Amino acid sequence: MNEREEPVNDSEETERRTANGPGTPGGARGMTRRALLVGVGAAGGAGAMFAAMGALGLAPESHDSPQRDFVPPQPSDFSLTGRGAAKVVILGAGVAGLTCAYELGKAGYDCTVLEAADRVGGRNLTLRGGDRLTETGGRPQTAAFGEGVYFNAGAGRIAPWMVTMDYCRELGVPIETFVNNNASAYVYTRGMTAPVRARTARADMYGYVAELLAKASGAGALNRRLTRQDRERLAEFLRRFGDLGPDLAYRGSTRRGFVTYPGVDAGLPIGVPPSLAQVFAAGMGRAITMDFGYDQAMPMFQPVGGMDAIVTALAAAVGRDRIRTGTPVTGLKNLPDGVEVTHRGGTFRADYCVAALPPNLLARLPHNLGAEITAALGTPVPVAAGKIGLEYGRRWWEIEDRIYGGVTETDLDITHIWYPSHGYHSRSGLVVGYYNTEENAELYGRLSHGARRARALTQGKKIHGEKYRTDLRSSVSIAWHRQPYLEGGWVRWPSYEGGFALLQRPAGRVYFAGDWLTHLVAWQAGAMESARRTVTELHERVLRATPS
Amino acid sequence: MNEREEPVNDSEETERRTANGPGTPGGARGMTRRALLVGVGAAGGAGAMFAAMGALGLAPESHDSPQRDFVPPQPSDFSLTGRGAAKVVILGAGVAGLTCAYELGKAGYDCTVLEAADRVGGRNLTLRGGDRLTETGGRPQTAAFGEGVYFNAGAGRIAPWMVTMDYCRELGVPIETFVNNNASAYVYTRGMTAPVRARTARADMYGYVAELLAKASGAGALNRRLTRQDRERLAEFLRRFGDLGPDLAYRGSTRRGFVTYPGVDAGLPIGVPPSLAQVFAAGMGRAITMDFGYDQAMPMFQPVGGMDAIVTALAAAVGRDRIRTGTPVTGLKNLPDGVEVTHRGGTFRADYCVAALPPNLLARLPHNLGAEITAALGTPVPVAAGKIGLEYGRRWWEIEDRIYGGVTETDLDITHIWYPSHGYHSRSGLVVGYYNTEENAELYGRLSHGARRARALTQGKKIHGEKYRTDLRSSVSIAWHRQPYLEGGWVRWPSYEGGFALLQRPAGRVYFAGDWLTHLVAWQAGAMESARRTVTELHERVLRATPS
Repeated sequence: MNEREEPVNDSEETERRTANGPGTPGGARGMTRRALLVGVGAAGGAGAMFAAMGALGLAPESHDSPQRDFVPPQPSDFSLTGRGAAKVVILGAGVAGLTCAYELGKAGYDCTVLEAADRVGGRNLTLRGGDRLTETGGRPQTAAFGEGVYFNAGAGRIAPWMVTMDYCRELGVPIETFVNNNASAYVYTRGMTAPVRARTARADMYGYVAELLAKASGAGALNRRLTRQDRERLAEFLRRFGDLGPDLAYRGSTRRGFVTYPGVDAGLPIGVPPSLAQVFAAGMGRAITMDFGYDQAMPMFQPVGGMDAIVTALAAAVGRDRIRTGTPVTGLKNLPDGVEVTHRGGTFRADYCVAALPPNLLARLPHNLGAEITAALGTPVPVAAGKIGLEYGRRWWEIEDRIYGGVTETDLDITHIWYPSHGYHSRSGLVVGYYNTEENAELYGRLSHGARRARALTQGKKIHGEKYRTDLRSSVSIAWHRQPYLEGGWVRWPSYEGGFALLQRPAGRVYFAGDWLTHLVAWQAGAMESARRTVTELHERVLRATPS
Repeated sequence: MNEREEPVNDSEETERRTANGPGTPGGARGMTRRALLVGVGAAGGAGAMFAAMGALGLAPESHDSPQRDFVPPQPSDFSLTGRGAAKVVILGAGVAGLTCAYELGKAGYDCTVLEAADRVGGRNLTLRGGDRLTETGGRPQTAAFGEGVYFNAGAGRIAPWMVTMDYCRELGVPIETFVNNNASAYVYTRGMTAPVRARTARADMYGYVAELLAKASGAGALNRRLTRQDRERLAEFLRRFGDLGPDLAYRGSTRRGFVTYPGVDAGLPIGVPPSLAQVFAAGMGRAITMDFGYDQAMPMFQPVGGMDAIVTALAAAVGRDRIRTGTPVTGLKNLPDGVEVTHRGGTFRADYCVAALPPNLLARLPHNLGAEITAALGTPVPVAAGKIGLEYGRRWWEIEDRIYGGVTETDLDITHIWYPSHGYHSRSGLVVGYYNTEENAELYGRLSHGARRARALTQGKKIHGEKYRTDLRSSVSIAWHRQPYLEGGWVRWPSYEGGFALLQRPAGRVYFAGDWLTHLVAWQAGAMESARRTVTELHERVLRATPS
């Protein structure tokens, strides 16, 4: 189970992943062009690699193709080899486990998915009116949301290059735009006296940056680096970029927004900007750059009606009769000719096992896979993450604030406020009042739901005023690190060396799968990519095996 | 008629409107706070105005409220005064005319809308399979689009602060997100050897700008302007903004995108960036800043199923029996006690008239309003604008290019390519192959539809390759300056002095309305704001008038 479309939610995290990411290109996949490039890159440095990429039609100027090669197992694979589809037991009905069962099922594998929880989906969780949520050591909550209101308590957004999009297409799950960045949303940092619109923060920061560089260039500070033509082109860009005056000074701009927007008259723009020193002191950098990364850039997407449409469709394609919920696993054994899984209801034998649980849980599961595997499973560190869904009886953020979707960025312990990217203009709606991780998530996670709500409302009120509290209708909160059978939002690998590579390979007849085994940790796409890799390797092995 | 949600489509235009916009705040509206501020601004300069705004709670730190005050006429207005609703003839069933009829109708005015064309909506025009399009001097086209495919040939997007959103809410027109900027779309300028993704263009431009400023600051070039603390904060921002290395150099970044995105392995980023000189020479500034303005910022919105849902709903609320299509007006006369409109079918008398036609057509209409009015009507200059809708039988831009909505920016004569922000993953779809204005629109407008299509395909192929041509299923193009009863995409005021102010006032019993009478030219919101103003003034006059 347990894959999740949750992007990291602070820039530190993004930077960490970025550092882990492209720094180690290549990996174990058998792609000739890429292997060549990795070799060239290692031998000749980036310049040589770039030249080689050009020769291969892979240079930035060429059309990139984010798609990976993947050929699902097919029944014909067996008819050609005289071998038969094997019996596979899959631990966990999260996105990784369901994707494994779905892809193996295409070739006729006899798959059974054992899921500890009483539902499928893992960290893909959509809560609706009447849904119950249990936390370890907490009182159960029951969502009181009205008709049509839902809360994506886990996975919340999909980038267009992600394989998640392909599964939505293949499974017929309709998608819609997810607004990940909204110029009308607010930025609020403790360096500011009051929130400002994102458009205002951006206009001021860009304005001053452009002015500083234009003036430095004009004063000759760049003459050694830039030709005169370069400097002219730079000045032209900076004028546009910062909306500078003819003298290359920034004095504010209509980009900051308006007290009253233009109409019959010209409108009233929202005044002159704070000083350069005030703008820098406000510390809005994280908010302004939040969508610059490859995983957060606009536009993003979501299934219509709730993220769980993906796992609902996957489970239906797998066959509900192949999925046993409420079945926690208590042991896992490699046998000479198969695997044996023990669970509360008894034991289950199969030819192969795919363990698609979080590594922190797998590390505690009694098994005979060896100490090295246990150590590897214990390496990644679970990360705390939490969210609260706040249902309001009227969409004040649309009517009064003109915020339709998107995110308000703060440096408060709530970190973000998300506004819904769907159901625009309907009567009620749900705002995500916090989406935080690490220390902030642990802080909220220790509280009762009522205390979480009170704290979230106190913080959100700093941005939206009294209506944020008074107009609340109902709420549900989740601390993922306190969710039974999950115990974390996702994991962090201290290093991708060692255990990460070991667990890519099977331990006997046991394979591992999950977002935690990819460079897309915390995204459903990671779970799906990992599942595809596991399915490919397992299938190749079955095709190679001596017919029994 | 004839208001239109079409934003200007090049930055020159945006800059022009910006220059016209907030430079002349105030106008004739009776808002005390604003009048005060305008006075303060004139007397004390921007600093004094800013201080005054703070005192009034209007400073940037306060919550702005983009809503204008507007109270629609109501039947009770008459019962209180003993007066009666008047008979009003409205010329043009575009957005301005329909909005006038809708708002006046709320109080029981006896409105009749005379529309020259055989349909309502003016420049709000959605074409579907079977629809015919006629151009002056051109062969009629019939759209051959398949089921569910539509082409917003005119108005295409709505900013969240616009009054258009309020009408969608009030009229029950469902809306969805319009993707106006997409990191996965392309940028293509003649300064480049091949298109690059918008994310790549942005990463490189920001990277080099950040590096240049960070190094200039490090070398002491900003020491006179910035304190040490400012410089530290600036460096921190620039590191984030440009994704710079620890030495503050830009060497590319994962933000550029990937040849193969991260998955089980770390992915293969798309190489090292071109040199700083190459990046500047590519001339990508317009593309990168296209959504920085207050009118184009993300997110934007569109009605579900086609822009004409707005005019369909307005017309239904007005009452179809009050709208006479196919009724071109041939004369307009103020009488001592009313107005007389002549049309092909005869004459029509009413107490008042609202002329909601484009000014270029009103200037030619025989009338008795005086030479000054004729001169004022002749002042704004019609602007050419054109679009082509290209229907494809498969959504290659989603499947192969991973582009879901958004705009590819070019400096070719097609200017833009729009990808649909709806119907994701459906079988077919429609791309806007050009959306251009002025000289480019005139160039395309002079061609037959077949020649326009051929030219658009030749240009688009530079970005998307052969499939852009081979996979085409059908197409329709429009040259707004060749549309009967419109003769332009919108107008440009050489100056907002003189005629603009004159036409805000009625000429006898004739009022004017349209986007062309606002600072939101080319937007439906302009038409609606103008209509609201006209309705307010007309209603106040009727309430003041001696009961007849």
